[in-house]
Amino acid sequence: MKEAGDRRPVTEARDPAFTPAPGAPAIAAAATTNEDGQWTMPAKDFASSRYSGLTEITTDNVRNLKLAFTFSTSVLRGHEGAPLVVGSTMYVVTPFPNILYALDLENAGALKWKYEPKPEAAAQGVACCDVVNRGAAYGDGKIVFNTLDDHTIAVDTTGKLVWDTKLGDINLGETMTMAPLIAKGKVFVGNSGGEMGVRGWLTALDLGNGKIAWRAFSTGPDKEVLIGARFNPHYASDRGKDLGVTTWPGDAWKIGGGTVWGWISYDPALDLLYYGTGNPGPWNPHQRPGDNKWTSGIFARDPDDGEAVWFYQWNPHDVHDYDGINEQILLDVASNGGTRNVLVRPERNGYVYVLDRRTGEILSATPYGYITSSKGVDLESGRLVIADDKVPQIAKVVENICPAAPGMKDWQPSAYSPRTGFVYLPHQNLCMDWEALEANYIAGTPYVGANVKMYAGPGGNRGVMSAWDVANRREAWAIPERFPVWSGTLVTAGDVVFYGTMEGWFKAVHARTGQVLWQFKTGSGIIGQPITYRGPDGKQYVAILSGVGGWSGAVVAGNLDTRDSTIALGFANAMKDLPRHTTKGGMLYVFSL
Amino acid sequence: MKEAGDRRPVTEARDPAFTPAPGAPAIAAAATTNEDGQWTMPAKDFASSRYSGLTEITTDNVRNLKLAFTFSTSVLRGHEGAPLVVGSTMYVVTPFPNILYALDLENAGALKWKYEPKPEAAAQGVACCDVVNRGAAYGDGKIVFNTLDDHTIAVDTTGKLVWDTKLGDINLGETMTMAPLIAKGKVFVGNSGGEMGVRGWLTALDLGNGKIAWRAFSTGPDKEVLIGARFNPHYASDRGKDLGVTTWPGDAWKIGGGTVWGWISYDPALDLLYYGTGNPGPWNPHQRPGDNKWTSGIFARDPDDGEAVWFYQWNPHDVHDYDGINEQILLDVASNGGTRNVLVRPERNGYVYVLDRRTGEILSATPYGYITSSKGVDLESGRLVIADDKVPQIAKVVENICPAAPGMKDWQPSAYSPRTGFVYLPHQNLCMDWEALEANYIAGTPYVGANVKMYAGPGGNRGVMSAWDVANRREAWAIPERFPVWSGTLVTAGDVVFYGTMEGWFKAVHARTGQVLWQFKTGSGIIGQPITYRGPDGKQYVAILSGVGGWSGAVVAGNLDTRDSTIALGFANAMKDLPRHTTKGGMLYVFSL
Repeated sequence: MKEAGDRRPVTEARDPAFTPAPGAPAIAAAATTNEDGQWTMPAKDFASSRYSGLTEITTDNVRNLKLAFTFSTSVLRGHEGAPLVVGSTMYVVTPFPNILYALDLENAGALKWKYEPKPEAAAQGVACCDVVNRGAAYGDGKIVFNTLDDHTIAVDTTGKLVWDTKLGDINLGETMTMAPLIAKGKVFVGNSGGEMGVRGWLTALDLGNGKIAWRAFSTGPDKEVLIGARFNPHYASDRGKDLGVTTWPGDAWKIGGGTVWGWISYDPALDLLYYGTGNPGPWNPHQRPGDNKWTSGIFARDPDDGEAVWFYQWNPHDVHDYDGINEQILLDVASNGGTRNVLVRPERNGYVYVLDRRTGEILSATPYGYITSSKGVDLESGRLVIADDKVPQIAKVVENICPAAPGMKDWQPSAYSPRTGFVYLPHQNLCMDWEALEANYIAGTPYVGANVKMYAGPGGNRGVMSAWDVANRREAWAIPERFPVWSGTLVTAGDVVFYGTMEGWFKAVHARTGQVLWQFKTGSGIIGQPITYRGPDGKQYVAILSGVGGWSGAVVAGNLDTRDSTIALGFANAMKDLPRHTTKGGMLYVFSL
Repeated sequence: MKEAGDRRPVTEARDPAFTPAPGAPAIAAAATTNEDGQWTMPAKDFASSRYSGLTEITTDNVRNLKLAFTFSTSVLRGHEGAPLVVGSTMYVVTPFPNILYALDLENAGALKWKYEPKPEAAAQGVACCDVVNRGAAYGDGKIVFNTLDDHTIAVDTTGKLVWDTKLGDINLGETMTMAPLIAKGKVFVGNSGGEMGVRGWLTALDLGNGKIAWRAFSTGPDKEVLIGARFNPHYASDRGKDLGVTTWPGDAWKIGGGTVWGWISYDPALDLLYYGTGNPGPWNPHQRPGDNKWTSGIFARDPDDGEAVWFYQWNPHDVHDYDGINEQILLDVASNGGTRNVLVRPERNGYVYVLDRRTGEILSATPYGYITSSKGVDLESGRLVIADDKVPQIAKVVENICPAAPGMKDWQPSAYSPRTGFVYLPHQNLCMDWEALEANYIAGTPYVGANVKMYAGPGGNRGVMSAWDVANRREAWAIPERFPVWSGTLVTAGDVVFYGTMEGWFKAVHARTGQVLWQFKTGSGIIGQPITYRGPDGKQYVAILSGVGGWSGAVVAGNLDTRDSTIALGFANAMKDLPRHTTKGGMLYVFSL
């Protein structure tokens, strides 16, 4: 199978010293090696593999999968979350109003308790792209999650509040939608609001009492970015004093975005956290000349004190809303240069990057879809080579910018199987027209400055589910989908990949071939993250939240008027037919053989 | 099995001339005899059997039932509706805002189109007991349904509006929640609002153009009740001029209730419609001395001109909110007196009535649960014998009135199998305390005059699913349930009975023994009506809407504060634990082998 549409020839960048050995690379040590059958964090493990060692469900028997139980979340907005399974309890956190449910897996998912944080209703008005929540995390007897109105909350396994810490201000446009990571007795969380003039940050809280341990901003002076003596980025353009100020005009860094609303990985051996920063604001690039550090890049930090160790900027002076917040999968790869500790990042700008996760050096950057917005990555400087004719202009519509603003892939996380060596990539095939406008900053209101109109890329399919062969840096197989594949993915030791479509199909495909082995029509479009676990009865279960929404599905979840093609920051234009294919929903589906 | 709780000895009334022959009686000629595999009206057929001749799903294989597809209705209120199946299309109408969906059964229920009538939001404020809708009906290429704001709407099979007729006024407290019946080129619909000082009516519209053919009020002068020369009730107390006025004080009949929000049956051979009238208003009986004709009774009418042929009053001068609107199942019973054309009515006051449907004569009235509010039915006069000590008093709490206001059984329809001779009765086991208050009439506001508090009846189970042996006038088996069984029932030629619980279990039980053969946990409590059909692939499917609410589930659907025991007209007190067992939802589930 081949992804629909030709690719504009863009150069692959590759360090010749990095030549992965044939065969599958191993998951980093940070991943779960002894499968315990639980699912205690959305990414399954610190390496963000979303790989389960469970083997009961196989490519041979997955066609017999049937529904074990369902649970209505009582919320009808976009469900981007991953359920958690700890012992015999499942935890589900909903979109706003962010209800946390505990379900009894010994009793067909019967409700054990619910915790209702009752976030401020006004938070809904400052969420750019639906009122989603990407899940909770479990650690030390606590379920920790964020609310749209900027609280991080820890609840114990009986449903009792342990602590509740307010971290942001909706009046400044800040919200929180990401799933926390818990490591080394700390909870790591970041803010959302890159379209509202928000200044991004990652914050560490003490897991025991919720007190703030440190906060690292994504813009501003080094001391606020927690850049100090240990900071040693690989590329020259990331070196210098207070670049978080000097790469911005005037005080623009104070409202410059770089929000931290995506995924965090952790390597216990190197003792480093990895996470990306969002787009610079406003979208209109002419209002912020300079590299706009430290937006649209990736930080490696010490989890104890937050000190930055390295940084790499995917998109210096981003001009296309290419947030840098996607998942990073930590792998140890045998190469001709010896085993390399890498991270694999399928980035919004259309390249799968492989970085040395000790240093931030790019080992390769390979296009995984149709790209017109750049011409490749310069390995010497580390910089993306922008296509000049695709830079947005004031009072002029620049056409056919690919990928579109949500990127080749947005937040929706991929999975990696050490059995196949493939990364399973849910993604988009969208292009856009863009006219830049002057944006005016008013606290807590949209600060964008762009008229964007998106549409399908070459081939007409707006989404793709593909397998990326890490060792050979090429697509192994691809399934074109009508709509963006906005769900997460899961891969198992039974060689089955699970993902969902925005029409509502939950699909199981063969990890090696991409053959669709089974599919089930859920009640609403799927943008959630599939998980699998071993139930109290010893059987393997697969769970997914169905409930369309998110940026891509806001036209349904928010009842938007698609006659205005710039609605939903231009995404609505590409999704005009979604209301004909699905309806709002909010339901957990749990399957077993 | 035995229903939990003893029964206060109440007399069974029975005409000795009516002694059904042993063995199963036949369904009336009005029922579908040649099973076409469709489901074109909520009751399946004019006889209201809710019996399907499909036989693929049996007591032996029902344990293998699995989910074929689901569909989110995008509404989170109580889903009391029955889906329809016409050809290869399923039609689902939601609670307010009453969206009509057409789903493609050749394509896993993919959305074909939807019709959104956009009823007035203010209608929600005058709906006494959640904003439910009990389903649509199909006839002559049109799907016909009611909206909460009192429109009857016909849409063609492509989703195009054919006609839209406004029939009531929400400013007077009128709403519409019932499912229309279509017969003889006419659509029959009635109003809701017995708790709002509404005057009840049944209206016939022309199926072709939606024009009103006739309207029969439930109170008022004979000419407005369409009582004329043909009217020949069996009992003396129903004879006399303008009883709809003279059995009320002053003008109280104008705001006296008798709404028509339940079920209509039709006998083509006798050419008679049968339907019940709701409770008199206000609930406080001391404000309306007299029999309060024609409330809480049953009419037989000519469908062409609406002329009344007979009437029987279940509850003359009702004092307990015993609406008379339940389903009537039309059966032809072989008896020692020759074959009798009867209707079987499991009534809210706690008796299963068998009436001669030619004349309105009671053949038997047998208790099917625990009754304290009456002592039996007098066959001579036809009148219910009220227990004087259970009549509500002003400024005094009368305790332990059983059944409670929702009756032994409310709107939730039973099914009848000609193979077993059993009626499958979903019902309640609730009692109540009642203090009467003076009610003041203000148009469009509650007009009740009662402080009611409900609780479980003897045994503690609040619901029962039972099988009623028509020939032997006794319970064949019963399944106690924690909550009221507020769903409809379905029985098939495979001898499987389907019903749902308010916790969300969808159950299949053996029609002869009541043995639970299969159950499935849906995402929300079930109060919908199960149906079955033959799909385009020739397989048998079973469909049910899950989504808790209605009067019994309003505590969840309306987020009511259960600390006030009189909330939801006293029902909330009996349902305080419901929020711990289920969540709001709105999802169609379709199963097959």
